[in-house]
Amino acid sequence: MINSTGWKQLKPGKLMPGKLRIIDQTKLPGEVVYIETDSAEEIYNSIKRMAVRGAPAIGCAAALGLGAVCQHSDAVSRDEFVQEVKKTAAYLNNSRPTAVNLSWSLNRCLKKIEESAETDIFLLKELLIEEGIEILNEDCNLCKCIGEHGAKLLKDGYGMLTHCNAGGLATGGPYGTALAPAYIANENGLKITVYSDETRPLLQGSRLTAWELMKNRVNVVTICDNMAAQVMKEGRIDIVIVGSDRIAANGDAANKIGSYGLSILADYHKIPFYIAAPYSTIDPSVENGDEIPIEQRNADEIKRGFGKLTAPKEVNVYNPAFDVIPNELIHGIITEEGILRPPFKDSIYKLLKNKK
Amino acid sequence: MINSTGWKQLKPGKLMPGKLRIIDQTKLPGEVVYIETDSAEEIYNSIKRMAVRGAPAIGCAAALGLGAVCQHSDAVSRDEFVQEVKKTAAYLNNSRPTAVNLSWSLNRCLKKIEESAETDIFLLKELLIEEGIEILNEDCNLCKCIGEHGAKLLKDGYGMLTHCNAGGLATGGPYGTALAPAYIANENGLKITVYSDETRPLLQGSRLTAWELMKNRVNVVTICDNMAAQVMKEGRIDIVIVGSDRIAANGDAANKIGSYGLSILADYHKIPFYIAAPYSTIDPSVENGDEIPIEQRNADEIKRGFGKLTAPKEVNVYNPAFDVIPNELIHGIITEEGILRPPFKDSIYKLLKNKK
Repeated sequence: MINSTGWKQLKPGKLMPGKLRIIDQTKLPGEVVYIETDSAEEIYNSIKRMAVRGAPAIGCAAALGLGAVCQHSDAVSRDEFVQEVKKTAAYLNNSRPTAVNLSWSLNRCLKKIEESAETDIFLLKELLIEEGIEILNEDCNLCKCIGEHGAKLLKDGYGMLTHCNAGGLATGGPYGTALAPAYIANENGLKITVYSDETRPLLQGSRLTAWELMKNRVNVVTICDNMAAQVMKEGRIDIVIVGSDRIAANGDAANKIGSYGLSILADYHKIPFYIAAPYSTIDPSVENGDEIPIEQRNADEIKRGFGKLTAPKEVNVYNPAFDVIPNELIHGIITEEGILRPPFKDSIYKLLKNKK
Repeated sequence: MINSTGWKQLKPGKLMPGKLRIIDQTKLPGEVVYIETDSAEEIYNSIKRMAVRGAPAIGCAAALGLGAVCQHSDAVSRDEFVQEVKKTAAYLNNSRPTAVNLSWSLNRCLKKIEESAETDIFLLKELLIEEGIEILNEDCNLCKCIGEHGAKLLKDGYGMLTHCNAGGLATGGPYGTALAPAYIANENGLKITVYSDETRPLLQGSRLTAWELMKNRVNVVTICDNMAAQVMKEGRIDIVIVGSDRIAANGDAANKIGSYGLSILADYHKIPFYIAAPYSTIDPSVENGDEIPIEQRNADEIKRGFGKLTAPKEVNVYNPAFDVIPNELIHGIITEEGILRPPFKDSIYKLLKNKK
């Protein structure tokens, strides 16, 4: 859930300074602490240290953040301003490598001012801020659409397994992507139980997914990642839905580490496996999953993730943040435009063509 | 690694009181703290709270513990003493339900005194203690045999994945079961890298397996449980070896939660999956894995496992401690007698027949 402060009073000639407003997700579920900022460094660090995380949320935060930073520009010419925006966007874009939504939304904001003929710096600033707000609003709407399409896959009494957090906290609005079908089904009166993998090392599942589902009165059961196979075997899971940080042109989908393994376990137990993600997650410049860069994160996330040493101090650690679910293990990709079905190369091509 | 104190000076007529001596594994890797005890309650609790854990180690600790408790018996008749031993054994046997080694070793000690014609209480106490020491010594020897058989499966440069801790800490002696092949191969000069799943919720992999492998100069890389599939996909794993807490007559093997999922992932990546366990792990009274009782443990292991709350306080949690690897996903069972091969129903039957 992404927000801004101040800009509500925005009108031509009277720009009330605004800030990006986010929940510091590293503090959940213990404390609900907000960060309000217009500092490029603080926005960069908030994304890098995962105070804000989730591909769509990162996109929204970066777009609003870009406006918040650049509203303070002292540029005296259009050209100088565009260069400043470009530089800030490039800086923010470096905060995390895997999610495509980050560069997608920053590029969209940049393009907006580059393509405008406007020379008044004040109006260019306004355009930039409006584009960020527009990206946020669009994200809120499309998550609801994802939920409505996805809810058709759920039946009363269903058990749904999810991994990491692809809920409201991971997007602009309250519905999220992978959790949106459960929220909508719950609103429609269906009794759904969401099994939430805790998702080591950073525990987004137990800290965030469980927190927001409970807050919204959806049944949730927390399990450790290594319990998923057993829970499937016991017949508790009817469907798996996860989010995605980048989807290749052939349907291979990068998501939080552990998703690849889950897709194999679901296949073994004949449980359908779905991705839920907005259209902006598709990166047609990437032909298949092998080309998606996978972020390696700090060893201390594993060794000291809970505030105390849980492994020998000097032990070697391997800590990839993402993996790639191969398209052949995916039953469908739930987007705001409907559910894409295999062969994904064709259905993705068709969607992108219609969107142009 | 199980030990005793005092009984080294044991000789007829001059029994130096002894105690069971174990490392408190809940304190590793931060601190190396020993527990020395002859209290039934403390032994029961040490097993229950997993200060000592690992199926063979539990068996050894219970057997030595039974002697340590019963050496203080005030029984005045053989019959009274046997009843006391029986009662203590039944009490200790209740500490954990899944591992068969616990009841196996307690029954063996009990049988020893029941079958003896001895009426001198002092000599019966000695017999009981000797049987515990004998079980410990046998365990140390058979783990070395498991290692020698298993090492034949390893080649120079191999990556081996293991789950939980089935090393020296989980058995009487230094070799362990699943880690014994790696230790022996390492002694033989082969370069082996062991990938150790951290093994939530109690982190036996990152806390214990990594600790003992490093101490013995075997290469080890710690990963989170949900990274196993990715590490397999990257070609880093040539073999998976895990321990077992109980093996059914058809080869289905119960082991730490997560093992079942691993066996599916190994199968998908065409990586051979082995169980390493002593003969005493086989429970012929159990026809197949469905009959093995699975311990459910406290929700706080997941929610507060690291001393701070990592999930909403009131969230539902499912916390099975074990799962069952189906025999069709197991390539071999490495025992002290050699490697059992499928069909396990036949190879297990043959082994048990020869052992009788």
